[in-house]
Amino acid sequence: MTVFSVNDIAEAVRAGRTTAVDMAKDVLDRCRKYDAVQRQVWILRLDEESLKDQAARIDQRLKSGEELPLAGVPFAVKDNIDVAGLETTAGCPAFAYTPEVSAPVVARLQEAGALLVGKANLDQFATGLVGVRSPYGAVQNAFNRDYVSGGSSSGSAVAVAAGLVAFALGTDTAGSGRVPAAFNHLVGLKPTKGRWSTRGVVPACRTLDCVSVFTNDVRDAGLVDGCLDWFDEKDPFSRPSAACPDAGTAFRFGVPEAQQLLWFGDEASRAAYEKSVEQLEKLGGKKVSVDISPLSDCAAMLYRGPWVAERTAAIGDLLENNPGAIHPAVRGAMRDGQGVSGVDTFKAQYRLKEFERIAGRMWEDIDVLLLPTTPTIYRISELLAEPEALNANLGYYTNFVNLLDMSAIALPCGARANGTGIGVSLIGPAHSDRALLKLAARFVPGGSELTRPPLDLETPEESAVKLAVCGAHLHGMSLNWQLSSRGAKLVSKTRTAPAYKMYAMEGTPPKPALIHAAGQGVAIEVEVYELSPGDFGSFVNEVPAPLAIGSVSLENGEIVKGFVAEPRACDGATDISQFGGWRGYMTAREG
Amino acid sequence: MTVFSVNDIAEAVRAGRTTAVDMAKDVLDRCRKYDAVQRQVWILRLDEESLKDQAARIDQRLKSGEELPLAGVPFAVKDNIDVAGLETTAGCPAFAYTPEVSAPVVARLQEAGALLVGKANLDQFATGLVGVRSPYGAVQNAFNRDYVSGGSSSGSAVAVAAGLVAFALGTDTAGSGRVPAAFNHLVGLKPTKGRWSTRGVVPACRTLDCVSVFTNDVRDAGLVDGCLDWFDEKDPFSRPSAACPDAGTAFRFGVPEAQQLLWFGDEASRAAYEKSVEQLEKLGGKKVSVDISPLSDCAAMLYRGPWVAERTAAIGDLLENNPGAIHPAVRGAMRDGQGVSGVDTFKAQYRLKEFERIAGRMWEDIDVLLLPTTPTIYRISELLAEPEALNANLGYYTNFVNLLDMSAIALPCGARANGTGIGVSLIGPAHSDRALLKLAARFVPGGSELTRPPLDLETPEESAVKLAVCGAHLHGMSLNWQLSSRGAKLVSKTRTAPAYKMYAMEGTPPKPALIHAAGQGVAIEVEVYELSPGDFGSFVNEVPAPLAIGSVSLENGEIVKGFVAEPRACDGATDISQFGGWRGYMTAREG
Repeated sequence: MTVFSVNDIAEAVRAGRTTAVDMAKDVLDRCRKYDAVQRQVWILRLDEESLKDQAARIDQRLKSGEELPLAGVPFAVKDNIDVAGLETTAGCPAFAYTPEVSAPVVARLQEAGALLVGKANLDQFATGLVGVRSPYGAVQNAFNRDYVSGGSSSGSAVAVAAGLVAFALGTDTAGSGRVPAAFNHLVGLKPTKGRWSTRGVVPACRTLDCVSVFTNDVRDAGLVDGCLDWFDEKDPFSRPSAACPDAGTAFRFGVPEAQQLLWFGDEASRAAYEKSVEQLEKLGGKKVSVDISPLSDCAAMLYRGPWVAERTAAIGDLLENNPGAIHPAVRGAMRDGQGVSGVDTFKAQYRLKEFERIAGRMWEDIDVLLLPTTPTIYRISELLAEPEALNANLGYYTNFVNLLDMSAIALPCGARANGTGIGVSLIGPAHSDRALLKLAARFVPGGSELTRPPLDLETPEESAVKLAVCGAHLHGMSLNWQLSSRGAKLVSKTRTAPAYKMYAMEGTPPKPALIHAAGQGVAIEVEVYELSPGDFGSFVNEVPAPLAIGSVSLENGEIVKGFVAEPRACDGATDISQFGGWRGYMTAREG
Repeated sequence: MTVFSVNDIAEAVRAGRTTAVDMAKDVLDRCRKYDAVQRQVWILRLDEESLKDQAARIDQRLKSGEELPLAGVPFAVKDNIDVAGLETTAGCPAFAYTPEVSAPVVARLQEAGALLVGKANLDQFATGLVGVRSPYGAVQNAFNRDYVSGGSSSGSAVAVAAGLVAFALGTDTAGSGRVPAAFNHLVGLKPTKGRWSTRGVVPACRTLDCVSVFTNDVRDAGLVDGCLDWFDEKDPFSRPSAACPDAGTAFRFGVPEAQQLLWFGDEASRAAYEKSVEQLEKLGGKKVSVDISPLSDCAAMLYRGPWVAERTAAIGDLLENNPGAIHPAVRGAMRDGQGVSGVDTFKAQYRLKEFERIAGRMWEDIDVLLLPTTPTIYRISELLAEPEALNANLGYYTNFVNLLDMSAIALPCGARANGTGIGVSLIGPAHSDRALLKLAARFVPGGSELTRPPLDLETPEESAVKLAVCGAHLHGMSLNWQLSSRGAKLVSKTRTAPAYKMYAMEGTPPKPALIHAAGQGVAIEVEVYELSPGDFGSFVNEVPAPLAIGSVSLENGEIVKGFVAEPRACDGATDISQFGGWRGYMTAREG
């Protein structure tokens, strides 16, 4: 099987048809192969030994008679969720910390016998619906690598879609657990707020955040929900789950008024949605036209209202002390949050209360809302060119769901000609999770495996290493030949993140030292070159002390290899940051 | 009877032993008599004819067979709650508006046959626990007029305590429906948030506000609750009431740890509380010591946290455009609210969630919390000297209740030697209203009438009229003799609120015109004199056009009679506001 099934694996392991250790070996093999396609799915992966040890303990527990509903099932965790002893980065190395305790969601899955494979990439601080906002690289769509994977739970979704794990935890504030499901032909369950503990999760908007799950079919999502539906007394946002009556076989489903359906020209999405409407009717549903404008108006408050202040609150003093460490597209939202007043916040909360009342009335007319998960999809290159507007378009059908305390499940419903997935979402009121799962199982009876196109497994050319240079290696300067002679290709003239100082070291010829100085730094001129790994290695081999090759953060949020310096480089050196770079300094010196 | 009973009146009117019209006559008589004691209980009272018409319609409805649970029962409404056609001032004339629709709470009471007598005074914008923060005058304690009535629902409480009405609506955000009950020997029910509609109520903190009721006994509060417990579909803060199990006769009640009980030296309050504890034990209660420090910590957030921004949000642009119209003690809170950020707001809301969880655990150990309603009481003069700190002391046992979504009923439990009331509060979780009422009825079986001291009905000396002068009537100037010859007494040299301009009118001798100029004005020097009403009348009779005697707002928030001018006074006149007053202008002119 190319696609893992949670239920099938757990059954096979429990029945002794395979073992958790064998599963671990299989997963290692799958991951290694997929590394050649795109490593950036992962921020951290357990090494072979730890994974096998973990698996052996699961097999041992089974032998000792424990009931393990997720016995040996491999899973990934979005890297804004704590796993004890592993670094949590939230996609921002400067923010990283190593928790001593796992988030209860992770602990409960491991308690149920699941096998943790690693921490998945994400849009930094879970801020984005795209998957390109990460210094660890843009996660590509599993079915067409020119296209976005969707985000913010980008790595989690692709890890499942590429068959590396059987399920993965994401988080979902504005649609981060649903948009990547749609784009990668997956099921994405975003339960009712507070149904699954959010303790040990780096907040995006803490009043709205949910942990979510990606699976290949609906039954799998239901099995995970069974393990995670739990009142966490220590999480102040946890809520006991409440009973929800089943809609039954004769149910009413809402669809937006015709002019409220946005597609941004994506006719394949429109057709797939229309087919889904017919399909729900065939399942016994009665279609009811619903005015979704209050939902859209409410959604607009998420990024244009005070809730951005929650994102600012979540990252502590990073914005003050080290803004350069924040991805530029994310930094904008964080800055907006600083400008929000308490008066604005309360006024928006009053307005939200009114929207809640309108939504409440909507649930008197319908049992479930059927919406497209997204209006369309974009190429990675399109997103990089227009990072904010296109990101916003993707959230049109998802942004309001947590604000209005709804539950949702994103389901695959078709493919574009380019291979990327199209999804619809079943949305219900708070606590309707089990009813949604039941209806979803009828809607996608066989799981998504049956209808999805093949994975895009083309191996990229040997991936070049990006190297930022800032001194005599700059174009036209004395040491540039060391790069040109190795076939290095200049890919961009840019600047570092505004987090560096440059010093001129003593000695002849003069050499610069680039020093990371969070909070006091400026942006320094650099050139980025690409070299093959072999050429890069031989280049690094020649770099003299006190210089070294480390990691350099660029203005656009990317982290590349580059020249750094040992502390001793600063002894007797002169701060020349005001020149903005080595070229500026040398010109001034010569002039 | 000196004290009205809601149940008794309604029964008598329904049984035909009296009529609503007779009740109206009785009320008019009572009110007229009490006007000689303190008129400032009221901001607006219906005139005789309207009251009798209203009563006649009630009698008519009874005759036509309607069931009226509150038939002919006179009541007052705090003047931050809308009554159709009557001005709502919220204690701030500049804020006043005339609503077309009554607040549903008022409409429902009238629907039930209650007789509306008038709109009661309050701490401006319901901001205060004292009753002295009103330009309509400080409401005095009904049992000792040197002492505060408590607030913010000051007039509502005293109207009931003085036997002018049988019940009165207040509002309660921080304790405004409970503190005045304690001080005036009344029952004050503050129901669960959202149980009674808050539509048509001027918000204090809209996420926390409750409408409350003052009555003479517990059964009366229960009867009013029966009329007002209603889900208001149009009020986004309304909640359907939920069932709450009765604590029964063997119940557990929480009392604070000894060192957490604050009295500020008031031994009578301590003794009354200790007696109440014994009394609850006699009723079958098991005393449980409870750490209330999380409740106090939570309470501190109400005025020192972001919720003050709700108060700022509630008054719209008044703070920008006409700050002088806001009472100085209230203005401080409004200003604090402007400085609150969205980040602060969300962080405090996260903290509140944690406190909610702690409070939730408390309810596992106890059925009800028994707390003093206030630690002590203060004289009006003490409050005026130290308006903020003493106000804060009064909320020690009440401030957290709405933040933590609790229900509370304040009950009379004793009197100080000075006659003022001492209260305790039964506090329970959300939706425990009916259980609290049941226990409260056992705690105060006979109503408060049996134990309360006599009313303080001493008629003050003929109340002098305060007149602010600003021109040639100032001390030492040419027309001052018109005051001195009438025995006028200079009571203060002060300034107006910073909301005026002064013009020098054309002509000889020069005369000033004081012009209210909200938003652009300054504070102008005035002197305040007291005259007997007769002398005042003869003085007003002599004032020449374009000058007139109207109302002038002083720096301390008080509104007194004073010189104003017709618009024509400005024709050809010179703005001399920069001199700060007539004396400054004349000195500059002569010099």
